[in-house]
Amino acid sequence: MENGGSPRNQWCFKRNEELTRASAVTVRGVLNMVMEHLNASDPRPVIPLGHGDPSAFPSFRTTPLAEDAVCAAVRSAKFNGYSSTVGILPARRAVAEYLSKDLPHKLSPDDVFLTIGCTQALETILTALARPSANILLPRPGFPYYEAIAGFRHLEVRHFDLVPEKDWEVDLAAVEALSDENTVAMVIINPGNPCGNVFKYEHLKKVAETARKLGILVIADEVYSHLTFGGSPFVPMGVFGSIVPVVTVGSISKRWIVPGWRLGWLVTNDPDGILMKQGIVDSIKGFLNITSDPATFIQGALPQILENTPGDFFLKIVSTLKESAEICYDKIKEIPCITCPSKPEGSMFVMVKLNLSLLEDIKDDTDFCCKLATEESVIILPGVAVGSKYWLRVTFAIEPSSLDDGLGRIKAFCQRHAKKQ
Amino acid sequence: MENGGSPRNQWCFKRNEELTRASAVTVRGVLNMVMEHLNASDPRPVIPLGHGDPSAFPSFRTTPLAEDAVCAAVRSAKFNGYSSTVGILPARRAVAEYLSKDLPHKLSPDDVFLTIGCTQALETILTALARPSANILLPRPGFPYYEAIAGFRHLEVRHFDLVPEKDWEVDLAAVEALSDENTVAMVIINPGNPCGNVFKYEHLKKVAETARKLGILVIADEVYSHLTFGGSPFVPMGVFGSIVPVVTVGSISKRWIVPGWRLGWLVTNDPDGILMKQGIVDSIKGFLNITSDPATFIQGALPQILENTPGDFFLKIVSTLKESAEICYDKIKEIPCITCPSKPEGSMFVMVKLNLSLLEDIKDDTDFCCKLATEESVIILPGVAVGSKYWLRVTFAIEPSSLDDGLGRIKAFCQRHAKKQ
Repeated sequence: MENGGSPRNQWCFKRNEELTRASAVTVRGVLNMVMEHLNASDPRPVIPLGHGDPSAFPSFRTTPLAEDAVCAAVRSAKFNGYSSTVGILPARRAVAEYLSKDLPHKLSPDDVFLTIGCTQALETILTALARPSANILLPRPGFPYYEAIAGFRHLEVRHFDLVPEKDWEVDLAAVEALSDENTVAMVIINPGNPCGNVFKYEHLKKVAETARKLGILVIADEVYSHLTFGGSPFVPMGVFGSIVPVVTVGSISKRWIVPGWRLGWLVTNDPDGILMKQGIVDSIKGFLNITSDPATFIQGALPQILENTPGDFFLKIVSTLKESAEICYDKIKEIPCITCPSKPEGSMFVMVKLNLSLLEDIKDDTDFCCKLATEESVIILPGVAVGSKYWLRVTFAIEPSSLDDGLGRIKAFCQRHAKKQ
Repeated sequence: MENGGSPRNQWCFKRNEELTRASAVTVRGVLNMVMEHLNASDPRPVIPLGHGDPSAFPSFRTTPLAEDAVCAAVRSAKFNGYSSTVGILPARRAVAEYLSKDLPHKLSPDDVFLTIGCTQALETILTALARPSANILLPRPGFPYYEAIAGFRHLEVRHFDLVPEKDWEVDLAAVEALSDENTVAMVIINPGNPCGNVFKYEHLKKVAETARKLGILVIADEVYSHLTFGGSPFVPMGVFGSIVPVVTVGSISKRWIVPGWRLGWLVTNDPDGILMKQGIVDSIKGFLNITSDPATFIQGALPQILENTPGDFFLKIVSTLKESAEICYDKIKEIPCITCPSKPEGSMFVMVKLNLSLLEDIKDDTDFCCKLATEESVIILPGVAVGSKYWLRVTFAIEPSSLDDGLGRIKAFCQRHAKKQ
């Protein structure tokens, strides 16, 4: 002990700079920054077109069946204890059966790992894949949580583009050009966040074949699965599990409009057992062993929720989303300085291109969003947060009447800031 | 692209060895290994003296008030959406008020961060403190999850002993000798896991003074707070927050017997704002920003649970634990080859020393536990898992009648394996 009896002048603990960097790039972090620009004296309600969480709106209330299932699980007192690492068996079996309906192969409960929302599922697979000098291919625009976790796990990120002119399809030539012997996986998000696109069967098959050729895993983020309302039906990437191993992440958050319930899953679509052989399944279990589990009683409610939710509920949600997406697309067409390359067909978002040459005093997308918050009490996400500067991500999944109001305010904002002819 | 059109022979992804190492040292991992030795043909029920989770036993059923609170929160549909990063305000305020009752200073909701059980709370603070070459002082015996997380975050671990002859007090001379300018914190667990001890006010004050002298943070794991039934009352470490900054981690898991609900907290007891100044509060928020949150409706139920749980419920749980601890202590005294250095006064565990010289064919604590599982269908945790080889950690928090049965089987096992005189 160098210092006898007197207290040290300095404390030995200090900020973790890596965490500061990782958390600055999340949607949450950027939206918090935008919201700081709200003008508290505006009497109008704030219109939240930033987050993908419509749960507060009456049209998006979850089904009573799900609420009943959770209450029954709590009242049973059978689910107060710790879960097993991978999740309780009846819940894993229910997820396997739910997903197998859309697959050519039947999933086993052993293919399913329950997670704390989709967030923990993607944290799990990125951590399982991380090793010195490894890299991962992520879509641009994308969901910045992938970048945050990859950065925190020292997994190098390389971006391939989604091509707006081709309905936001993956630039597969870029995927091939970016990959090398240290590339471990590529990520696709389908239905698309932030683009609102839905990949077609043929394109997904090409993704699988490209990944097979490169020897990399496909991580399919399907948290918006079944939320489609255009010409393309939802096709799960797991359909191509016999071409290339696919890890699918998903949850009840979006389809059941309960993101706060924190119940998700990581599923291996791998009929040839490659992930097991390569040790990835062990790494997934290893990570789940040192992190927390989703609440056991929500797991207990899962079979009832997945098996018995009335079809009417899904139809109503999808039809409300379709209505909202159309309002959004039509209204945006009326605003000269922003353009939508294609009509959204799925998820809760659309990407909108900003034409700064038509605006007088707007520097970039972040400036647009901050001034919009101040002047119109409307929150949207700057495209830079999802990798596309001079774009905006607009959430249409809110009450249609509020959406209409919000888009009207955006129009007024753009007119006010338009360059004089 | 080096390989033209044909698939690679090798996959680019492989096992994450760090995860394998980290997860091998958890209680969960070791107990799973012991349970593999169970003999399925034994008709007797398995007696689980391994985990600290008595929720399956009738005497330990949680209060109906807590179940009601969760169901009301679900039914309200107010808590289906995402939580804020640090937890919703009413829940943080409730934790601040609940803990302030036992403190000389009043906590603010801003001192409180809600977490997915106590597990995520300790993961959060260890991650917030991690930086290259930093080290942390952990108790031995202790709770191996700390070692697992520290290893995974590259935080060097140094162990100080808890002294069985002194009611498992911290060896403070060792703490001083171990620490250097890269030591960021020391951990205490009170009431003690695995020792079942309860630290006295004077000892905790000395811990605070030592940490102050060394310039290190005290992490106080109080997940078993208020579960005391001996001569020493529970004193929260936060009482000494004006001597040294204290981060307290806790949850409703143990006092309310709902570990599967996954609701915990990390609380800063830091009237001088040192953690804020040193950037630790930012790092805590940064980590919470890139991980998941506890289910929002459980947060919504928290004020009701913390404010209105009837005192009768707590009295009944503590009195059942006291009865179980006494059965455990008395029965162990009848078994020559194991000894209990002191009667447990808190938590759900006791450490028991194995005297191998009295046993014929038992190699060590792990061998003892595996053979006990096979022959008697009783699960206990080998001491090596908590840092003390040739010891055992016995959970007494189960239905008293089952505990009696289990200890009877341990006695029979020891007699059968005793050295012939």
